[in-house]
Amino acid sequence: MKYNYRMQIAYDGTPFHGWQIQLTGLSIQEILQNCLAKIIRHPITVIGSGRTDSGVHAVGQVAHFKTHHPLDISKVFKSINSLLPKEIRVLSLENAPIDFHAQFNAVRKTYHYNLFVGPVQPPLERLYALHIYSKIDLNAMQEAAQFLLGEHDFTSFANESHRGSAAEDPVRTMERIDFVQSGGNVRIEFQGNGFLYKMVRNCVGTLLEVGTGKRKPADIISILEARDRRQAGQAAPPHGLFLFHVDYGD
Amino acid sequence: MKYNYRMQIAYDGTPFHGWQIQLTGLSIQEILQNCLAKIIRHPITVIGSGRTDSGVHAVGQVAHFKTHHPLDISKVFKSINSLLPKEIRVLSLENAPIDFHAQFNAVRKTYHYNLFVGPVQPPLERLYALHIYSKIDLNAMQEAAQFLLGEHDFTSFANESHRGSAAEDPVRTMERIDFVQSGGNVRIEFQGNGFLYKMVRNCVGTLLEVGTGKRKPADIISILEARDRRQAGQAAPPHGLFLFHVDYGD
Repeated sequence: MKYNYRMQIAYDGTPFHGWQIQLTGLSIQEILQNCLAKIIRHPITVIGSGRTDSGVHAVGQVAHFKTHHPLDISKVFKSINSLLPKEIRVLSLENAPIDFHAQFNAVRKTYHYNLFVGPVQPPLERLYALHIYSKIDLNAMQEAAQFLLGEHDFTSFANESHRGSAAEDPVRTMERIDFVQSGGNVRIEFQGNGFLYKMVRNCVGTLLEVGTGKRKPADIISILEARDRRQAGQAAPPHGLFLFHVDYGD
Repeated sequence: MKYNYRMQIAYDGTPFHGWQIQLTGLSIQEILQNCLAKIIRHPITVIGSGRTDSGVHAVGQVAHFKTHHPLDISKVFKSINSLLPKEIRVLSLENAPIDFHAQFNAVRKTYHYNLFVGPVQPPLERLYALHIYSKIDLNAMQEAAQFLLGEHDFTSFANESHRGSAAEDPVRTMERIDFVQSGGNVRIEFQGNGFLYKMVRNCVGTLLEVGTGKRKPADIISILEARDRRQAGQAAPPHGLFLFHVDYGD
């Protein structure tokens, strides 16, 4: 394999069984590989920056794949978007250094989690934002979020991966958590140097328990210290979550 | 029937056979009537401000319905949104004067038609904006739109209705056509005192033929004068169209 390509991908996760190839249903990775194999006429392995779960969306997923022969990039770019279902779009395709690795070279990721707070959710948002029917205390949630910032062992906010990545180092640095509000729409932006399995959804689920008064903001401190998944709240549903951006320091 | 109620309704038109009750599939009007009948325990007729076609969306559809007995409005409002599919939301429900009629009292309507211009359409817009792959001449389209402004016989831009409304007066006043651009997204806003069957989609389809150079902006003048549906362009697809607002002068 002498040639390496990098692509940015957006998808509506609603109809798919997540990013990663599954025995149980159609994954985005598998669809991309199948389409590329049809164009290149050779089996292709697509490596993403990381998994997104079933129902999670992406605006800026990044992946790479290698080939034996050089590609006509603009031709492959057009072909793949004509073969892919409209729920998945390749936004860009470009040459990458041979050692570029979409997962291992990622230095920073940004996720957005969308809430709609109010009695009636606009129909077009139903698949892309979690509907919170009653008022929640956003100030308390923002206060709680401050305790997640910085370098921590995030074991309490990580589900065990099916891949058995229990041995994975659970220390991550949460660089930024911002709340962006516009009417009933609340977008929570999480930026960090890496995220454990289901970490964003578990953080959101726990913040929502603060927002509804079930927990206090400072409870986050003891939850982190416990290093015990059972101490944090339930994962928020997947459909509010977007992988927004993967940063490679370039 | 002594009590009259007015409601504002939003819907994602994708899965429905339009607003008006059809023999061929499930309409939004029928779903609303069925849900209201369940709550009120009496058959209910819902009258909308006008039809929207299969696949057309609404942000501000307005309808009225009458009952023999007064309703507990806040209770009915909650009940109907819990019974309706999430693609349809009642945004407001209020008492109306007994002679309020959602169709006949409408003095002005605003429709939005969404385009996405560019090689790759973001996946979340696929059901809500028409994808135009190549550059189009938006200036020419705006120039053409000016000829549609004012009072005209819009016969050339009206399909014959299934209801056989051929006898309907085809004179309408187009008050405003604005182009709102943001990156690849172009929203064309149509405001007028009334719209004939498929008139907005036929206007957009004809403007797009100007945008691709198939017609000249001033061709609109002769198309209007011809009073012949065959002179204008094909209807643009339904999924880019939103009924945005109905004005009752209140």
